[in-house]
Amino acid sequence: MESTMHLGVCYYPEHWPETRWAEDARLMREVGLTRVRIGEFAWSRIEPAPGRFDWGWLDRAVETLHAAGLSIIMGTPTATPPKWLVDRMPDMVPLDRDGRSRGFGSRRHYCFSHAGYREEAARITRAVAERYGAHPGVVAWQTDNEYGCHDTVQSFSPAARDAFPRWLADRYGTVGALNEAWGNVFWSMEYRGFDEIELPNLTVTEVNPAHWLAFRRFSSDQVVSFNRAQVEILRELSPGRDVTHNAMGFYTGYDHHDLAADLDVLGWDSYPLGFLEMFRFSEEDKRRYARQGHPDIAAFHHDLYRGCAKGGRWSVLEQQPGPVNWARYNPAPLPGMVRLWTLEAYAHGAELVSYFRWRQFPKAQEQMHAGLLRPDGEPAPALAEVRQVAAELDQLGQAGEAVKHAALVFDYAGEWMTQSQPQGEGRSALWAAMACYSALRRLGLNVDILPPTAALVGYSLIVVPCLPTVPATLIGALDAGEAQIVIGPRFGSRDTDFAIPDALVDPDVERLLRGKVVRSESLADRIAMEGDGWQARGWLDHYEGDAEPEFVTSDGWVTGYRLGRLRLCTAWPEGTFIERLVERAANDAGLPAVALAEGIRRRSCGNRNFAFDYTSGTVCIDPPV
Amino acid sequence: MESTMHLGVCYYPEHWPETRWAEDARLMREVGLTRVRIGEFAWSRIEPAPGRFDWGWLDRAVETLHAAGLSIIMGTPTATPPKWLVDRMPDMVPLDRDGRSRGFGSRRHYCFSHAGYREEAARITRAVAERYGAHPGVVAWQTDNEYGCHDTVQSFSPAARDAFPRWLADRYGTVGALNEAWGNVFWSMEYRGFDEIELPNLTVTEVNPAHWLAFRRFSSDQVVSFNRAQVEILRELSPGRDVTHNAMGFYTGYDHHDLAADLDVLGWDSYPLGFLEMFRFSEEDKRRYARQGHPDIAAFHHDLYRGCAKGGRWSVLEQQPGPVNWARYNPAPLPGMVRLWTLEAYAHGAELVSYFRWRQFPKAQEQMHAGLLRPDGEPAPALAEVRQVAAELDQLGQAGEAVKHAALVFDYAGEWMTQSQPQGEGRSALWAAMACYSALRRLGLNVDILPPTAALVGYSLIVVPCLPTVPATLIGALDAGEAQIVIGPRFGSRDTDFAIPDALVDPDVERLLRGKVVRSESLADRIAMEGDGWQARGWLDHYEGDAEPEFVTSDGWVTGYRLGRLRLCTAWPEGTFIERLVERAANDAGLPAVALAEGIRRRSCGNRNFAFDYTSGTVCIDPPV
Amino acid sequence: MESTMHLGVCYYPEHWPETRWAEDARLMREVGLTRVRIGEFAWSRIEPAPGRFDWGWLDRAVETLHAAGLSIIMGTPTATPPKWLVDRMPDMVPLDRDGRSRGFGSRRHYCFSHAGYREEAARITRAVAERYGAHPGVVAWQTDNEYGCHDTVQSFSPAARDAFPRWLADRYGTVGALNEAWGNVFWSMEYRGFDEIELPNLTVTEVNPAHWLAFRRFSSDQVVSFNRAQVEILRELSPGRDVTHNAMGFYTGYDHHDLAADLDVLGWDSYPLGFLEMFRFSEEDKRRYARQGHPDIAAFHHDLYRGCAKGGRWSVLEQQPGPVNWARYNPAPLPGMVRLWTLEAYAHGAELVSYFRWRQFPKAQEQMHAGLLRPDGEPAPALAEVRQVAAELDQLGQAGEAVKHAALVFDYAGEWMTQSQPQGEGRSALWAAMACYSALRRLGLNVDILPPTAALVGYSLIVVPCLPTVPATLIGALDAGEAQIVIGPRFGSRDTDFAIPDALVDPDVERLLRGKVVRSESLADRIAMEGDGWQARGWLDHYEGDAEPEFVTSDGWVTGYRLGRLRLCTAWPEGTFIERLVERAANDAGLPAVALAEGIRRRSCGNRNFAFDYTSGTVCIDPPV
Ligand SMILES: [Zn+2]
Ligand SMILES: [Zn+2]
Ligand SMILES: [Zn+2]
Repeated sequence: MESTMHLGVCYYPEHWPETRWAEDARLMREVGLTRVRIGEFAWSRIEPAPGRFDWGWLDRAVETLHAAGLSIIMGTPTATPPKWLVDRMPDMVPLDRDGRSRGFGSRRHYCFSHAGYREEAARITRAVAERYGAHPGVVAWQTDNEYGCHDTVQSFSPAARDAFPRWLADRYGTVGALNEAWGNVFWSMEYRGFDEIELPNLTVTEVNPAHWLAFRRFSSDQVVSFNRAQVEILRELSPGRDVTHNAMGFYTGYDHHDLAADLDVLGWDSYPLGFLEMFRFSEEDKRRYARQGHPDIAAFHHDLYRGCAKGGRWSVLEQQPGPVNWARYNPAPLPGMVRLWTLEAYAHGAELVSYFRWRQFPKAQEQMHAGLLRPDGEPAPALAEVRQVAAELDQLGQAGEAVKHAALVFDYAGEWMTQSQPQGEGRSALWAAMACYSALRRLGLNVDILPPTAALVGYSLIVVPCLPTVPATLIGALDAGEAQIVIGPRFGSRDTDFAIPDALVDPDVERLLRGKVVRSESLADRIAMEGDGWQARGWLDHYEGDAEPEFVTSDGWVTGYRLGRLRLCTAWPEGTFIERLVERAANDAGLPAVALAEGIRRRSCGNRNFAFDYTSGTVCIDPPV
Repeated sequence: MESTMHLGVCYYPEHWPETRWAEDARLMREVGLTRVRIGEFAWSRIEPAPGRFDWGWLDRAVETLHAAGLSIIMGTPTATPPKWLVDRMPDMVPLDRDGRSRGFGSRRHYCFSHAGYREEAARITRAVAERYGAHPGVVAWQTDNEYGCHDTVQSFSPAARDAFPRWLADRYGTVGALNEAWGNVFWSMEYRGFDEIELPNLTVTEVNPAHWLAFRRFSSDQVVSFNRAQVEILRELSPGRDVTHNAMGFYTGYDHHDLAADLDVLGWDSYPLGFLEMFRFSEEDKRRYARQGHPDIAAFHHDLYRGCAKGGRWSVLEQQPGPVNWARYNPAPLPGMVRLWTLEAYAHGAELVSYFRWRQFPKAQEQMHAGLLRPDGEPAPALAEVRQVAAELDQLGQAGEAVKHAALVFDYAGEWMTQSQPQGEGRSALWAAMACYSALRRLGLNVDILPPTAALVGYSLIVVPCLPTVPATLIGALDAGEAQIVIGPRFGSRDTDFAIPDALVDPDVERLLRGKVVRSESLADRIAMEGDGWQARGWLDHYEGDAEPEFVTSDGWVTGYRLGRLRLCTAWPEGTFIERLVERAANDAGLPAVALAEGIRRRSCGNRNFAFDYTSGTVCIDPPV
Repeated sequence: MESTMHLGVCYYPEHWPETRWAEDARLMREVGLTRVRIGEFAWSRIEPAPGRFDWGWLDRAVETLHAAGLSIIMGTPTATPPKWLVDRMPDMVPLDRDGRSRGFGSRRHYCFSHAGYREEAARITRAVAERYGAHPGVVAWQTDNEYGCHDTVQSFSPAARDAFPRWLADRYGTVGALNEAWGNVFWSMEYRGFDEIELPNLTVTEVNPAHWLAFRRFSSDQVVSFNRAQVEILRELSPGRDVTHNAMGFYTGYDHHDLAADLDVLGWDSYPLGFLEMFRFSEEDKRRYARQGHPDIAAFHHDLYRGCAKGGRWSVLEQQPGPVNWARYNPAPLPGMVRLWTLEAYAHGAELVSYFRWRQFPKAQEQMHAGLLRPDGEPAPALAEVRQVAAELDQLGQAGEAVKHAALVFDYAGEWMTQSQPQGEGRSALWAAMACYSALRRLGLNVDILPPTAALVGYSLIVVPCLPTVPATLIGALDAGEAQIVIGPRFGSRDTDFAIPDALVDPDVERLLRGKVVRSESLADRIAMEGDGWQARGWLDHYEGDAEPEFVTSDGWVTGYRLGRLRLCTAWPEGTFIERLVERAANDAGLPAVALAEGIRRRSCGNRNFAFDYTSGTVCIDPPV
């Protein structure tokens, strides 16, 4: 019986003596790894001087790995242009919001809008693809590495200043249309031509949010077109291979739906312990799950990126195997967690889990980032877990198609809007989605996270945590089915250019809600709205319409309405309030919702069921229901 | 019977179709508004291209409003120079303290010292004044908008670098006098000529505080002269009309006494909910008054700006009518608060309360800032309150002259000194004034906030919370009367150039206090000095002289002294300590001081008495005493 | 009987009228001062215009002080170059990490790498030394003032950009060696020549820590060579006089071992109250010791700088006598503290305690910084304490050689490593040293803080809190003796270029520990590891080897191991955990360790014993044991 999921590892042969490579490859295979990801940061070794290529070492590395039975995922090295290239084109580096240069010395020191660097990226991609595109050992390509890492999607460079007005002209046609769409009559911000439009930084106070949103879209599109250029070369020179890229956690710098449209498989890099420490989890959860990560971190991204990926093909391209170096604090995973994370990815449908990295490099920025091997070449604790889970996966075979329970709707542009105009500090569409996801998962439900353009067929429950701009197709999808629906704040409150619609909300939305929100308040966390067994915070929409109050606080504030199979949250969708509301909706939907114990999460696939225990780091396969 | 106070509204006809204007004007009148403020941000519509004026729309707007019976307050549009102007004079933008450009894209993108922009501002002011100066519908002018908003008074531009030495030469005559006054022998900071003197930014560590203070004065003077240039044009071309400007809350970027000297009426913009959230109120008050604002916020500024205004003529040029967009969190006012704030302004003697704004604009930066109408043109909750209070004001007639109870002395230069050299973090003259004000107001007293040069006649109690530099006239005023006097820390501890006087304090001050403070300590808030029923914090002045200890902590620290009708606070004037001390002084003064219940404030005028209940948002007119 | 310790004071004759100088000098002598430190910031008075010297006033000041019987410590004025010099060489100023100029207006506005300023500094040093080098009143020289104050050691200027590659070429010989040592193959950071290497700022994300460490070393070396240039001139022109410099508290910007190697005496500036407020002490300690400073602050630096100083000669060049101006809050010392601090310096072996400053200057940046006299020339409270302690010191005579108890090993490069790669926020070698020091001192032990190259002979207990790079000689020293040894985290975990050794630790270290740490975790403070009567936090090293677990938490984590006379801390060495561990080690060492009451510290010298009571500000000399 063969599992649907491969195990792999990220490997940097250039870090180690050639004499070690064969032994590394042998050991990879021995513990059950079948994929190896190489090449992504190797530009200075592939082309040590302008136009002088040194393929020998990489040829030998590819042969050695291939000979050992490993399939290769080859990376394009464009995330780390060498110093000689930066010295030749000093203006290729991005500028930050304050106008400061972001130069050579680490990685990602390029501006996505720089035409010269785009040519260089195409040149090196073509060179690598020409060399290895037809190699039988190469089964997939990864473009670049973690687009946007270190906040590099937005660049305030002359190159971006040059490209942005052209992008605007394409979008708006006339500057009059732009002025009208953005409301530039306000504060005399009207432009007489596209060339007058600056990048939205170094202003006295905040720029027009429509200006900012356009810049976010532009910046995202620059990433997508940069990536597409590589994809086209790879498809030409390496036909039949998958093209992938590794996305990050809690990152919304570009539209992943758009990027994934050009890829065969969407990968992501899963570092649950680092993410717990660096993102907005409670102090209590940070203490409780320091060595496990919060139980929803990995699964949220699995379900999110599966929903972004064309055809639902996704993978974990980097899986944390031990302490990392980049979080504020860097504990080691509890014994069992590497196995647990691997099985959880499998249960959520991953094609591949690739551990980062084979062996900890004892130098440079990531010298404290663990691998499966220690810097001295001895096994790190994770290696034994990999060996174990590889064997288990062989036994498990195909997990089967997951049962459809709930759909959760999320879009990147919505998050950009709430980032730029949260109205109340921290009221983010992404984190509203995370809170709703967590509420659903604590009930043991399967969740698919989907774009608002998705069909949403087959779900008993649809949750739309925070979606300012609502496409007509979504209204159609909600109207069409029989699903229970949960709608959060700001739904349909903006058009695509960040303006409030003429009637306050989209007319279709008003029809769906049989009413509308006529006023919104944001509230500090210090202000608790107490209900019977629940507490709401952070926001209050004033709804007028036919829906009936369902959640009412002791002070008489209405935080939730019901209208047939639709529920409207008028408080911010988080905490015990959203847990109670989602629970009612799930029950009304006839879903098998049960309040799971702390730290337990379930996933029910066609062939297999799983219970993941984040308190102990254990997994129960096919548990009693 | 006619009220002394007008109600008005801020209106942007350029935001709305002309077809709507007449209906807007009619509705304004219907709810009881008589004033409308227009034009302040309309430069790009008045002059869409260099030298090409488009007056048609504004002519029609003026006619429509005038025809409906509204009187117009016309704004000069200099707060929002259009893009074409910035492109012609790129160096007109201010630079921030880090030397970064503060360019086009929002508002206030001009440096007060830029001669070219001063010419342009005069040119557009003259153009608007020529067009409408004699119009019978125009009853007043507002210069610019919120000088200093977004921290724009200080600019570290080449234009300021050029103007500052000339200002210094005017003030000091010789560079030797400047070196001596500033103590530049310290750290070899001596200059050989005025041209050597840089702006006080981009230094290794803090600059000489005398240097900084001079720059604060210079920057304030630049605002005052910028404003004066407009006032002179308006007086020439629109004789008989009032000239006003809208100041802000808790803002001390320029000397409002100086600015007001050129105005007929001093206006200010009252946003109690935003101010509560953004300024230094306790977490408890932020929770308790989230939908009301702290009970002293509006009144403090009413009493402050009345005291700044020439002849005491003042108004509220922008009154919050609903949620705003710019605070960290933006709740809606409790029902009744818009009426309460309006009546409170009336009780404190406003000539006008003008709501900001007529209708919420659905686009651009302030799209979430409420108006009296919603973006869809329907009434927002505040409209009904305006209608109600307009009718009430008609019944109330003249409030009468307020009874004189307490005078509180505040000066801008004193606040600049404590901002630059607080000696203990956050020990600010402004916030000392606010704490003393609050203590007086909790006792039900009327307070006038006055500059140290005021006559101070007719008050039973005079409080000087924190005044480092004491003019001789103030000593005279304190000596002269019979009032009880409360003096806070740092009194007379600096000369006008920020130097400690030869005898530690001004000799007149020493005579007044029959002694002096010989040493000052600042203390962290974590260090509480406990008295009997009160607690002092933050500061300890060591006084030597004839005054008797009156407030002594359980550890033996003396935080308050008494000397006849004078009390000296040697701890920071805030909290229960200053409440007890002020209460004693008020009782000794024979004032009708009563400890009001939480959230209650009173105001007694000649004809009317008021009790404002901030807990419920209600007002009691002529309550039983 | 004569004390070994002199008392002195910092004096700025240029701040006061000449007519006052003789009286000041007389009073200095009267209260018992014998040393006076002058000249350090007087460049603009010595050379008021380029090349025009005015020696008259300084000649008279020197004569006046000398005539009164005071010995002079003369400062070179290079910390405050005058404006005319900066205007002649505008590129002499340092640039900060963001590339911003750090210009004239305060002090230290020079880049250590600027050749032109180096020439100017040599020129003015030579001028002053030629004038006063042979004067009988001048007994010592101080170079510059507080190197590195206001974060001025690192400069990101063109001058530094020019000098750094040359320094690197000297260190590494070939760029290949540098690439190999730094691991530049990682992220394609390889260089083809030294000239390609930039300063480590304005990069996208963190630079290679080896790059950063090299820049720290380079920056430190620039300070050392800048200082050495002055020392050489002074030795030539003022033979027989001591040369000193005043170091700061909790400051590690340059290697004090290296600087001190060129000096006769190492001085430091002791401001216990300011340091308590500004550095990482607990809120409880900040409350408890607000007017005393934490009991270990002064002593830690006494013992640290004695260990840095060539021949152990050290002094306090600035001693806080009252409130300062630069801390967040600035209380006054408790009565008795000035005497206590003076006696504590004496007990720790100081040659001199010099109070800063004679008289508070009523102007400029430090106008709120107390002196022995108030700004009005009257005595401040400290003056009487100085008079008292001067008399006591005369009686006490020689304190005698301190008994050797414990040695604590600290190195600057180790702190640079933990600052750049703490792995867990705030895990600093310096503060680990401070915590271990405190644990030892709470037991009443004498401590010497020594570099890892020290012989360590004669100690019963040796503590190495955090030393990533271990010189072979240290292993030899630990092996050789019979001392109890305590080793903290990260011991021997890096080579000198910040790389993990091939075998994870240095082979000698592995031999010493009979095992090694194979994995390290950093943990947030929120994660407590509870033992029996102690709590550990912050870190967990996983050790494999022969040592036996000695400290085991209730959860089974091992935070301390024992191997004969060696103990290994695997948790971060702080809190009750390190107190218990150090106590055991001290007992095993046979040291007279007793748990002292809160706020008590002891020091036992050859002739005298001392107990310092920081709770009351009292000192007990030769207390009953
Ligand atoms: Zn999308
Ligand atoms: Zn004033
Ligand atoms: Zn050293």
